[in-house]
Amino acid sequence: MKLEQMFAGRTKRMKASEIRELLKLLDQPGIISFAGGIPDPALFPAEAFSKALSACMTDHAASALQYSVSEGYRPLRGWLVGEMAKIGVPCDVDNILITSGSQQALDYLGRLFLSPGDTALVNWPTYMGALGAFNPYEPRYDQLSINGNRAPEDYVQAAQEATGGRVKFAYLSSDFSNPTGETVDLRGRQNLLDLAEAVDCAVIEDAAYQALRYDGSDIPPILALEIARKGDIEACRTIYCGSFSKTLSPGLRVGWIVAAKPVIAQLVLMKQASDLHSPTLNQMAINHVARSCFEDHVATVRGAYGARRDAMLAALATYMPPGVDWTRPEGGMFVWLTLPVAVDGADLLAQALETQKVAFVPGHAFFADGSGRNTIRLSFSCADEATIDEGVRRLAAALRAALGA
Amino acid sequence: MKLEQMFAGRTKRMKASEIRELLKLLDQPGIISFAGGIPDPALFPAEAFSKALSACMTDHAASALQYSVSEGYRPLRGWLVGEMAKIGVPCDVDNILITSGSQQALDYLGRLFLSPGDTALVNWPTYMGALGAFNPYEPRYDQLSINGNRAPEDYVQAAQEATGGRVKFAYLSSDFSNPTGETVDLRGRQNLLDLAEAVDCAVIEDAAYQALRYDGSDIPPILALEIARKGDIEACRTIYCGSFSKTLSPGLRVGWIVAAKPVIAQLVLMKQASDLHSPTLNQMAINHVARSCFEDHVATVRGAYGARRDAMLAALATYMPPGVDWTRPEGGMFVWLTLPVAVDGADLLAQALETQKVAFVPGHAFFADGSGRNTIRLSFSCADEATIDEGVRRLAAALRAALGA
Repeated sequence: MKLEQMFAGRTKRMKASEIRELLKLLDQPGIISFAGGIPDPALFPAEAFSKALSACMTDHAASALQYSVSEGYRPLRGWLVGEMAKIGVPCDVDNILITSGSQQALDYLGRLFLSPGDTALVNWPTYMGALGAFNPYEPRYDQLSINGNRAPEDYVQAAQEATGGRVKFAYLSSDFSNPTGETVDLRGRQNLLDLAEAVDCAVIEDAAYQALRYDGSDIPPILALEIARKGDIEACRTIYCGSFSKTLSPGLRVGWIVAAKPVIAQLVLMKQASDLHSPTLNQMAINHVARSCFEDHVATVRGAYGARRDAMLAALATYMPPGVDWTRPEGGMFVWLTLPVAVDGADLLAQALETQKVAFVPGHAFFADGSGRNTIRLSFSCADEATIDEGVRRLAAALRAALGA
Repeated sequence: MKLEQMFAGRTKRMKASEIRELLKLLDQPGIISFAGGIPDPALFPAEAFSKALSACMTDHAASALQYSVSEGYRPLRGWLVGEMAKIGVPCDVDNILITSGSQQALDYLGRLFLSPGDTALVNWPTYMGALGAFNPYEPRYDQLSINGNRAPEDYVQAAQEATGGRVKFAYLSSDFSNPTGETVDLRGRQNLLDLAEAVDCAVIEDAAYQALRYDGSDIPPILALEIARKGDIEACRTIYCGSFSKTLSPGLRVGWIVAAKPVIAQLVLMKQASDLHSPTLNQMAINHVARSCFEDHVATVRGAYGARRDAMLAALATYMPPGVDWTRPEGGMFVWLTLPVAVDGADLLAQALETQKVAFVPGHAFFADGSGRNTIRLSFSCADEATIDEGVRRLAAALRAALGA
């Protein structure tokens, strides 16, 4: 038997995420790309990282290059304790695990909670990397609704009847979500907590974009709201996943999980068995940069991306034909377009690349049920304002052509 | 329901590995530790890494800090192609996946091959981190024997009868294994390939210590022997796992897998879903250091560890009471002691720490069946020769006390 036949049954569980294909698109000359959900490398705090790496290697080379504990570098966890306190999440270092990006957090949480046939509640659409992380554990997906128009018992009953499993968690990105750019308001967060109580499931709060707000007011994380209800993180069912990928650097792969200690203790064992620990040097360098210039750097990034968001919203208003709707995100990297139902986002991409040299991500890949054919995601993070204007003009031209207008 | 009750059934699948407890032991003042299977940080090529990191940040900061492809940094895979060719493994970059240490390789291979009840063939004893990596996938373990005294059909039948599963792979560390320090000779490697053919299972070759040979002659990797039989890596069932942890730095978490392309393609999807990619900067820095000084640095490390191994073997011959046997490793970091059957390694550790301030790892944790109570593992990698002599003297004193001699 060929080796690949031994795991043939497993292939279908895995789904390629976007990064791979999109990095290829970005490489093509002349393409204006709104595809990659990646930060602008020109905004990386490269100078601060150079200094940090140099300081780590001068003062702590032996520990920077050595094995370290699975929980993560303690000074970095200490800094995060301070940051979490600022956003209403009092906790201590034992409530925090450092992960290799928040993608690893999602993988671990899928592994921790999901047995085949269990149900995960997700938005339609949701972050496709989350579906990629959960898929290997063979869950059933159900559509999360936080506007109270579906009874909690209905989720429980549907999970039981469909595959004999339980609803294990609700996953959502609460701020400026990937792919829609939308934010869950305070009432929505409270509704979600009510729903999770009634269903008796965990809440996975993906806060990857939380720091990137360009206007409007901060809304407390779901975990903060639950702590306010219950008085103590140890009583909470919300698991918060943070990341430095959108603020400092994605390439260093440093994220974190905040949760009740028994959850963290299990995840530490999982981390130990799966890759021992996240790289020591990377955690030390992130700690150094975070302590030296996190707030200032995030302010710079917000200024740049905020101007790009404004440019994209203005260009959409200028160029888009009637019948197209889009979100008005208060932060993050994405605007989500709903096209006339006759337009397929994947077909439009092929055509737009060919005729207009503009790229984006077709929306249906973000739907657990494969729907959303007439949606697309635009990222404004990696292009300057003039390029955004030109790219949206091109996209509108491709769309008009598709509509036969 | 409390969150931890939701995953209570999963707790037993996970097993803490050694690193955690041992790092604590090493911190105690006055203790001579032969416990940690970790490289001596004084031997890290810190200067070379400082230069490499500085060069990466000066010339390529934007890509060093950015997302990159799941397969791994291509120039590093290119360098590895050359290294693999030197040890009889012709392959190309698409046969190689960069992992976050070889621990992650073992996790991925467990995930790829094992369904609950499948059988993994392992040595009694074997690397406990491998058991930790495989355990979450709930395999049955059977004892691998490569001396031909057990018929292949017996493995297959036992797997079927015990748990209804298949033998999915044989896992072994071929050179200077953790924990015994022993090396599989050429005949053993050929026997193993015969067995794997007859059983129709994969072979996972853990080569973490392969570069650390102090005397004797290199033996071709199992993968090289299989390629010699079959003419092409694409026809091979052996999956080779390499690591920079014992040669350059464990803290950067860079390892690699070499296998037929369909296997690598599946593992790339798994990597993408689980943590997107290993950190970009780390791969670039390892590539830089490997290209500038890998051979010279490994020669230095070999010289230092070889002298320590000599010191440990000499001290054992000098101090150990009759009835104790030990391995004579040609490389690696470990000597494995078999004590008189009346002595329990865990009890001896408690006593040796208390009365003699010397530490080591009790051997039973390396046995999938929990046997091996009268064995212990000594590491010689982190102590100088005088300390090794003194530590072995103390250990012998503790052992004599335990024996009532």
